[in-house]
Amino acid sequence: MNNLVISVDAMGGDNSPRVVVEGIVLAHKNNPDIQFLLFGDEAKVSAEMKRFPAMNEYCTVVHAPEFVRNEDKPSQVIRNKNTSMFMAIDAVRKGDARAVISAGNTGALMAISKMILKTIQKIHRPAICTNIPHKSGMCVMLDLGANTECNAVNLAEFAIIGNILAKHTLEIERPRIALLNIGAEEMKGREEIHQAAKMIKSTHLDLNFIGYIEPHQIGEGYADVIVSDGFTGNIALKTMEGTAKLISGMLKGTIKSSIITKIGLPFLLPVLWKLKKTMDPRKYNGAMFVGLNGLSVKSHGGTDAVGFSYAINNAAKLVRQDFVQTIRAEVEHVDLDELSQDILYDVY
Amino acid sequence: MNNLVISVDAMGGDNSPRVVVEGIVLAHKNNPDIQFLLFGDEAKVSAEMKRFPAMNEYCTVVHAPEFVRNEDKPSQVIRNKNTSMFMAIDAVRKGDARAVISAGNTGALMAISKMILKTIQKIHRPAICTNIPHKSGMCVMLDLGANTECNAVNLAEFAIIGNILAKHTLEIERPRIALLNIGAEEMKGREEIHQAAKMIKSTHLDLNFIGYIEPHQIGEGYADVIVSDGFTGNIALKTMEGTAKLISGMLKGTIKSSIITKIGLPFLLPVLWKLKKTMDPRKYNGAMFVGLNGLSVKSHGGTDAVGFSYAINNAAKLVRQDFVQTIRAEVEHVDLDELSQDILYDVY
Repeated sequence: MNNLVISVDAMGGDNSPRVVVEGIVLAHKNNPDIQFLLFGDEAKVSAEMKRFPAMNEYCTVVHAPEFVRNEDKPSQVIRNKNTSMFMAIDAVRKGDARAVISAGNTGALMAISKMILKTIQKIHRPAICTNIPHKSGMCVMLDLGANTECNAVNLAEFAIIGNILAKHTLEIERPRIALLNIGAEEMKGREEIHQAAKMIKSTHLDLNFIGYIEPHQIGEGYADVIVSDGFTGNIALKTMEGTAKLISGMLKGTIKSSIITKIGLPFLLPVLWKLKKTMDPRKYNGAMFVGLNGLSVKSHGGTDAVGFSYAINNAAKLVRQDFVQTIRAEVEHVDLDELSQDILYDVY
Repeated sequence: MNNLVISVDAMGGDNSPRVVVEGIVLAHKNNPDIQFLLFGDEAKVSAEMKRFPAMNEYCTVVHAPEFVRNEDKPSQVIRNKNTSMFMAIDAVRKGDARAVISAGNTGALMAISKMILKTIQKIHRPAICTNIPHKSGMCVMLDLGANTECNAVNLAEFAIIGNILAKHTLEIERPRIALLNIGAEEMKGREEIHQAAKMIKSTHLDLNFIGYIEPHQIGEGYADVIVSDGFTGNIALKTMEGTAKLISGMLKGTIKSSIITKIGLPFLLPVLWKLKKTMDPRKYNGAMFVGLNGLSVKSHGGTDAVGFSYAINNAAKLVRQDFVQTIRAEVEHVDLDELSQDILYDVY
């Protein structure tokens, strides 16, 4: 077996294992070098795989007697070694795979991943991260909810991880890094953000750091990496989703309410179709849980095969470029705890 | 002079005093009972007013020798009693007016308002508040940036104020109140939010309180009052603005890029026009600075006469219903500090 292996929780998500199997088939077209380890109910998974005989060349099924349900609390399932989710994550710890993907229970995936894979040495906290669209491309945003409260060291670590993510997944050579804040001026916002700014300026990321970004500037494409605590990042991400839904709902309502626009529908359809394609949430599927000794990726539970394949594609990019090892090497030379002391002394 | 007087900083905003004067003329049509005190350069203001002779019946101009510039820092202008902004706010303190409106420097308006008008007894912190659209109407959102950090008492106070705002400006008899959070479950999010939930449940707002709301649910119209700290509220509001701009930009780009849609433009225009009308930021103009002994309203600096008139309309609604006195009466019977002690003891 080669080095590029991704383990998959075949039982996670609303339509598993069907969507998972079909997603792997789609992803394999772009990633013929990747091998897959599928954990799940062997009979069910094999039945789905029968439709794609070529899969046997790049997939191995490992039977898992149980699976994590959406309604399970993380504390209930975290120590159950017989679930497809646990076994898929454990394959990364054992070195059998380099990343794990699941469309299952988010809380359980995060809790088990954290417990089994542990944070990379010198990284204090893992973060949830995803790519989001702006007017001329995409940017990386983290943390999106792993950490409700963050100190300056955590934020600076997220900047380091985000920088590598943008390089590897978006292929941006020198990503512009920004801290999410409520103003551009130095003293705006919270103290931990000011301290994080000072810390980032003291690292090798100094030249890539563009300071604070306000949420309405994200869509303008001012930055490639948006760093925030998990509470704020989650608020911003869900606000984007909600606003997009509100506007598209209004657009539909307006079209339906007018005879003129009903007549003009043939002209409108290409616009709506293209807009839908640009904003297609499947393209941004795959929240990455980063900062651990191995990559853990959460696919949306309700996604289809196309969406699942996007999550795999992103994970494959990171695996191929040895993402975890790159983080290890970068933090090796940066002592954020020491920097933090310097900055705290500075304040008094 | 009757009791319903609004004082106006005639020199604030990008096109003052022209826009201010025209805005007052528009607002007067809906509010014939309101009198205005205009503070500013008498020659300039009177010159603009000459175009509308009837204004003299409901407007009094008071000369102010100086004005606050956009680039002035609050600390530089806070004690300058000769600016139109200071004098307009001071008219509220003196009892000459019940509310003040300015399209000028936000930081200065907030700082001077807070210094001169002071918070209502038993209210610890003022909040910035505005109405935002959802799919079937509007809701009140606060705090939008006055307080970067908030404790549970502050959040509970915002719930009380927001409840009155929704009743008075949106005419909702029993507003549904929610705390903005990253999950619906009781233990999600930050500790101060959990404590605030307990406190609100212990007040007269108990039956109106619907728990936590996530940002993507705001547009669904689940709540009439959305309460958060000023950092989070500001992030959410600016994310809404940014996402709306991103989508409308994409829509325009798509229309321009396709010959079919260019041909169909006559059919498209009514849709875009109606969407623009619904989302028109002028309708939501007027951020209210509430919790002080008097109402201070910030109009967007770049707005036009229509936008300025909306800000006046909102202020007029509150003045007519004696908003400040209603808050005083409601907090009279609620001892949030005592409640806070009970809840803190509960934790240990």
